[in-house]
Amino acid sequence: MLIVGERINTSRERIRPVVEKRDKEFIRNEARIQIEAGANMIDVNCGTRVQEEPEDLEWLVKTVQEVIDMPLCLDSPSPRALERALGAHKGRALVNSITLEKERMEHILPLIKKYDAKVVALTMDDRGMPNDSKTRVEIAGKLVEVLEGEGIKKEDIYFDPLVRPVGTDPQQSLMVLEAIKIIMEKFPGVHTFCGLSNISFGLPLRSLINQNFLTMALAMGLDGVIIDPLDKRMMSSLKASFALLNKDEFCLEYINAFREGKLV
Amino acid sequence: MLIVGERINTSRERIRPVVEKRDKEFIRNEARIQIEAGANMIDVNCGTRVQEEPEDLEWLVKTVQEVIDMPLCLDSPSPRALERALGAHKGRALVNSITLEKERMEHILPLIKKYDAKVVALTMDDRGMPNDSKTRVEIAGKLVEVLEGEGIKKEDIYFDPLVRPVGTDPQQSLMVLEAIKIIMEKFPGVHTFCGLSNISFGLPLRSLINQNFLTMALAMGLDGVIIDPLDKRMMSSLKASFALLNKDEFCLEYINAFREGKLV
Repeated sequence: MLIVGERINTSRERIRPVVEKRDKEFIRNEARIQIEAGANMIDVNCGTRVQEEPEDLEWLVKTVQEVIDMPLCLDSPSPRALERALGAHKGRALVNSITLEKERMEHILPLIKKYDAKVVALTMDDRGMPNDSKTRVEIAGKLVEVLEGEGIKKEDIYFDPLVRPVGTDPQQSLMVLEAIKIIMEKFPGVHTFCGLSNISFGLPLRSLINQNFLTMALAMGLDGVIIDPLDKRMMSSLKASFALLNKDEFCLEYINAFREGKLV
Repeated sequence: MLIVGERINTSRERIRPVVEKRDKEFIRNEARIQIEAGANMIDVNCGTRVQEEPEDLEWLVKTVQEVIDMPLCLDSPSPRALERALGAHKGRALVNSITLEKERMEHILPLIKKYDAKVVALTMDDRGMPNDSKTRVEIAGKLVEVLEGEGIKKEDIYFDPLVRPVGTDPQQSLMVLEAIKIIMEKFPGVHTFCGLSNISFGLPLRSLINQNFLTMALAMGLDGVIIDPLDKRMMSSLKASFALLNKDEFCLEYINAFREGKLV
């Protein structure tokens, strides 16, 4: 199970000035606390600083990898920023993301191959974001074909079925849950991966919706997630779900987490 | 969705002496607060008082129905107790439960027919409680055949796939989740129903496990549950799950529950 920590993102008010000021200590601490809380990969995202993104992303990669000896999730749609970041990155990065859009394929796929990266593949194409599960699965199928054709292994692909707010489109969560289940069954070896916060956009007590959606998605086979690992509610549900889905035999991790006071 | 309130049960220390003393006011209040909290059916269970069960169950039925004008869930394996309770009951009761065991079939099925009751059918037979999902579905299939043969409609059958502790048997929750999904797909019209607390037996912070299991089971199609509706965590998850599963269009119930301070 891939648990990506999402806190190092310049869209967070606390992070933007820290990146501007090149405050290494703050960024390193953000990385450390996420790993301590249970993340097994750190995401770096500075997409809000469009002009400075390539330089910032490279700096973030170097800064985090100085203290965390693990591959990172490089979160950008910009080929220029990804190239800088990949050049500085140690190990096999997870590039977040590619799509079936012509433009992204042309510019990002060569980077993934050049740097032997793993990849998050959004199930969208030039028609935009799909509404139903069928289109999501179709696009995933085409992406498997294209990516495998370019030598990328199934186990290095993480499909993101693109969660949209359930408050404005009541079918969305069912569609995504179904897409996760079918993708995991139809393309054995691949992973599924998603962010959660979109699902609850516009609703009150968003963490309650996010947590229940995560639990359902895990039951459908989801094996990668990007979250704030310091959100105790979310991490508690993750651990309870692992116990329930036979991913934590005899619930030992769950019991340990309880003893350490990590469950709420 | 059937939400049965489980609080009127003599296995609870607070309830046993109340039933012994025939404290009508206490029982009526327990019924009322469960309906107010969101239950749409009240369970009555006095199985711990084996000798007095028939008389007690009849008294509970009368006492509750004096204030709650709804059918009840009559929770007993005893034909003698069920007969007394059904005789006193107004409307179509839900008898909890029948099984494919010869003895129960012989003595409880005639009561269900005589009183035109709905029925909870446990997926077990004379071989005992099944381990895997396949056996659970097989038994459900035989039960559909037998019950339909006796004139009981599919929509009056609630299958309980019998949850066992995940702490001692790590496969159990997967097996039950799969059984729920297959039963709902294979026998359209029937319902599935389950209690939650067994799943977490022996584990710490049981409400966390129970809540996540409920959320997963709802995603598989579960449409009946027996819970303590005063457990705010459980009811919050139920409402979040309905929003996610398109059973609460545009999340209006969820938003109202939030405004009323019912969500945690």
